[in-house]
Amino acid sequence: MSKPKGFEKPIGVKDYLPGAVAKLRHIERQVLACMQGWGYEQIITPTMEYYDTVGMASSTSDAKLFKLLNNRGTTLVLRSDMTAPIARVVASLLKQEDFPQRLSYHSNVFRAIEEEAGREAEFFQTGVELVGDSSAEADAEVVALAIASLNAAGVERFKIAIGHVGFLNGLLGETLPGNTEAQEQLKSCLLGRDHVGYRQRLRELSLEVPVQRELEGILRLRGGAEICDQALQLSADETARTSIRHLCEIWDVLKAYGVSEYVLIDLTMIGDFSYYTGMTFEAYAADLGFPVASGGRYDNLLAQFGRPAPATGFALKTTRIVELLGDEAEAEVERTLIVYDAAGRTAALAKAQELRSQGVNVVTERADGRSGTPAAAGAAEPFTHKGVRYAALLSYGGNGLKGGSAT
Amino acid sequence: MSKPKGFEKPIGVKDYLPGAVAKLRHIERQVLACMQGWGYEQIITPTMEYYDTVGMASSTSDAKLFKLLNNRGTTLVLRSDMTAPIARVVASLLKQEDFPQRLSYHSNVFRAIEEEAGREAEFFQTGVELVGDSSAEADAEVVALAIASLNAAGVERFKIAIGHVGFLNGLLGETLPGNTEAQEQLKSCLLGRDHVGYRQRLRELSLEVPVQRELEGILRLRGGAEICDQALQLSADETARTSIRHLCEIWDVLKAYGVSEYVLIDLTMIGDFSYYTGMTFEAYAADLGFPVASGGRYDNLLAQFGRPAPATGFALKTTRIVELLGDEAEAEVERTLIVYDAAGRTAALAKAQELRSQGVNVVTERADGRSGTPAAAGAAEPFTHKGVRYAALLSYGGNGLKGGSAT
Repeated sequence: MSKPKGFEKPIGVKDYLPGAVAKLRHIERQVLACMQGWGYEQIITPTMEYYDTVGMASSTSDAKLFKLLNNRGTTLVLRSDMTAPIARVVASLLKQEDFPQRLSYHSNVFRAIEEEAGREAEFFQTGVELVGDSSAEADAEVVALAIASLNAAGVERFKIAIGHVGFLNGLLGETLPGNTEAQEQLKSCLLGRDHVGYRQRLRELSLEVPVQRELEGILRLRGGAEICDQALQLSADETARTSIRHLCEIWDVLKAYGVSEYVLIDLTMIGDFSYYTGMTFEAYAADLGFPVASGGRYDNLLAQFGRPAPATGFALKTTRIVELLGDEAEAEVERTLIVYDAAGRTAALAKAQELRSQGVNVVTERADGRSGTPAAAGAAEPFTHKGVRYAALLSYGGNGLKGGSAT
Repeated sequence: MSKPKGFEKPIGVKDYLPGAVAKLRHIERQVLACMQGWGYEQIITPTMEYYDTVGMASSTSDAKLFKLLNNRGTTLVLRSDMTAPIARVVASLLKQEDFPQRLSYHSNVFRAIEEEAGREAEFFQTGVELVGDSSAEADAEVVALAIASLNAAGVERFKIAIGHVGFLNGLLGETLPGNTEAQEQLKSCLLGRDHVGYRQRLRELSLEVPVQRELEGILRLRGGAEICDQALQLSADETARTSIRHLCEIWDVLKAYGVSEYVLIDLTMIGDFSYYTGMTFEAYAADLGFPVASGGRYDNLLAQFGRPAPATGFALKTTRIVELLGDEAEAEVERTLIVYDAAGRTAALAKAQELRSQGVNVVTERADGRSGTPAAAGAAEPFTHKGVRYAALLSYGGNGLKGGSAT
């Protein structure tokens, strides 16, 4: 292995230059303000957590956790999501607070990656957790807030696919009783949206024809509220039926929010975290193959931190949204350049302070004769100096500089 | 070693609850806006860097770096400051950009710590780097911007102590030629502000009386511009004298900025980073024993990344400033509670959306009869419900709830 060169940075991480930072900050500000409008309050948790607690609870596979040792020899991880750390806080610092608790965050998270193209080891998420409410209203609230957040972030065309972990668990348990291996394989195909693989695996199982048709049929269970009715006819399993009825209730609340046009019921949806226990959803932007937000209900996670409670939430994949948005989100910052010589210095710096207090961005430069300081005082046209665009020029001084153009 | 309990977090890191986040975000926003007003543009760099590049350049002692291995077995560090990562970016992604470059950041940084009381392993810094300008004007600009940034952060009473690495290096080299061990010991005393230890070490060196007096005399070199004159008489060493003349120039520019009342020349100042090569400074808030900002010139760091250039900058110790500020910075968020039943749901959720679009923070709740939903519609008095303070209550529905009080 060769040593990294001086200017290199680790694989899978990146630098954000000012244009990208402006977009990221814009999204962060807009989305957090939107979440605040729904009563969610921001928290910040540490980058490092214990492996044995948050690391284990995070449902990120061990190989994808960044691990390190502290001075005591205890294994730490870089957080791989914010849901498990927030569950820890709700069960410790916020233990005395009543439910429901509404919490929001904007944070970087970490995943150790294989060197696949485009996979990132550090990326930003902006999300919420609604803890202590098991109702369909709570699930609908986080879905509706995800839609409002994507709108606030400037994502214009997207769809939310919503499913329920209990439907598939119930249906597969009913049709493939005891065969957990086959159940897991079929779920894994659905998680990867590999419908070809799913059908092939079904054929290999040599099921009775009605059962095989039933399990193939769920691939077509995508659409509006009518899907719930179809699904209720598909399964007699009580877990599956309860799940579907919960989804129907969520749909009704989303209709009341006036956002059901964004939503698609998709009973093949699983959700990429093993801690999900109920409704799960993913948001897809037009023309993009990957989700821009995902979320779901996780009613067993809080118990791992000693305060059992139902919970639901979502996270925007903020880094992807930054890449998705064009440069239109980025308004160019207008700057004024003030040049001065020794004689004009005090007047120039005072003028700079005055303009800054009025909200003008000002760069000051001492004209030293060497560096090609622009000579024209009070230039009204935008110009470029040392690679920076300026909207205006003021100059102060006596030695070869025009007199101050201050007004 | 016992396993960490479920709710524990690692030693030296902390959670920020909503009140603390509001303060931190307020400072972040105000200070970054101030820096933008001076022409500085924000960048974001990754949390992890290569140990062999940024880790080595960061001038954080090896024991204080958090290290981890990536999938290839290369050693990474969690960044311990932002100066070295920004130097890397200026020498790589920004290689084609002209000098000077003005860059700002707000970032968490990491230091592995002994378990001392109050030391933090992760904390926030907000700062700037001005790269490619070796002038006294550039040094004065970052000092003046540090003052403006502290004001923007809400720190009211503070002093900036400013010194120069070259003065002590020159004076000690002149008076203790060849005795680098004694030179380092004396500098170490000054860095720790251990004047008793400094005097004792001087006595142990059995120097000639005039030399000992001279080296003791620098402890009294604290004050205004007159200190520069006194220091010029103290040393004939050219490095020391050049350094003092540079400090005098900085002082003159700071006078022109109108901020010299904040500044104290202190020739015993050394900065806490070994990469400093010129002016260094620290800001002390009234009644606090630790600095709230520090900075200095580092003209040799960029060369380590392949693009030699002079540079100067500073960082606010933002986490400390959050602790320093009282709760007055934290304005309580006003919320409205909307309760509804099945019959009132659509009207209630529409009203919530309408109010949110007007900037009102709204929490909605379905009255399920179990959870003690407040009954009075249109309450004008602030009230507390499930631990949350609300400024107003609206209710919608027919089953035992008053009719909608929407206006």
